[in-house]
Amino acid sequence: MIRLYDHPLSGNCYKVRLALNQLGVEYEKVTVDIFKGEQNSPEFVALNPNRKIPVLVDNGFVIWESNAILLYLGKRFSPNRIYSDEPKTFGRICQWLLFGKTTLDPALARARFMTRFVPEEARDPKELEALRESGRVALGVLNEHLKENEFLAGSYSIADIGCFAYVSTAEEGGVSLSDFPAVKRWCERVCSQPGYIPIY
Amino acid sequence: MIRLYDHPLSGNCYKVRLALNQLGVEYEKVTVDIFKGEQNSPEFVALNPNRKIPVLVDNGFVIWESNAILLYLGKRFSPNRIYSDEPKTFGRICQWLLFGKTTLDPALARARFMTRFVPEEARDPKELEALRESGRVALGVLNEHLKENEFLAGSYSIADIGCFAYVSTAEEGGVSLSDFPAVKRWCERVCSQPGYIPIY
Repeated sequence: MIRLYDHPLSGNCYKVRLALNQLGVEYEKVTVDIFKGEQNSPEFVALNPNRKIPVLVDNGFVIWESNAILLYLGKRFSPNRIYSDEPKTFGRICQWLLFGKTTLDPALARARFMTRFVPEEARDPKELEALRESGRVALGVLNEHLKENEFLAGSYSIADIGCFAYVSTAEEGGVSLSDFPAVKRWCERVCSQPGYIPIY
Repeated sequence: MIRLYDHPLSGNCYKVRLALNQLGVEYEKVTVDIFKGEQNSPEFVALNPNRKIPVLVDNGFVIWESNAILLYLGKRFSPNRIYSDEPKTFGRICQWLLFGKTTLDPALARARFMTRFVPEEARDPKELEALRESGRVALGVLNEHLKENEFLAGSYSIADIGCFAYVSTAEEGGVSLSDFPAVKRWCERVCSQPGYIPIY
């Protein structure tokens, strides 16, 4: 039995929901109300001492960090669909999943969080603009790659899922995709994959 | 032939040098002078559009993102030594490599950079203290895990290499390890592995 500790607004949780759906894996969801601080409860900290969602529990095996969960699910359920053990393809998948977490998500997820959930009077406008600019630089890197590649690592894979989540909500954070036409076309290709579900 | 685009002071490059040394893989180093902006040269941007070191080139296959390079090297050269394809161990390795990049490195690497390379009058003391505090929180998570585990993912692996690099330089950034005795003992175990080399 697979259980996902989830929140419906979290892009990081959405990655895992999308992968599970596309892999056809049944699971149950437990909503962790991060706006009420439930990630700091002793029960949750026992699962993830880093106090973040998502957490996946696969028959007692507990794993956290969204992009690591994608790699785990890929290996466990899909050797040859949205994951690959061929060294170069594997390396390329890992590269984009790490780029997602070092470069893309920190900018786009945080810009969205501030724009959607922090009251205007409590925001630092300089910080928000710096995040949006970092997001545009990261999208530029993605756009260059996607000009000549249909997907990030050969065929559609967890690398696309990992990077797509916060790109799909970029405009909620005040980052327009209109300057990144190859990224927009890639988003359309991701949305047309079998088993695709939107974030909400 | 393997080529590593490297800088001797970079913790991210050190991870790759350490892994290559422990795997016994021969390689040549090309120093990219990041203090002179050589990562912005057209030649380098053609290798890594994200303009960061390290970059590894393995017989024409170009890969970047330090922790992704560790996963690639693990799969390519060491199925059963410092890497594992067994799903749970693989998932655990990925979890800690992602934790390194989302939580540990952003705090410790940036605190070190500001402390070592930014002149005191140009630093934001509030930002620096916030980075140090984030580093201590991340070290606390690591410390809890290492109280009951010799290494991060079972036996010594690329997960340890990935997290060790900036832990080994934490004190250069003003973050003492003295409150994290299990982390200190783990550092000693990492340093006693065959093929270990220090950052400098």
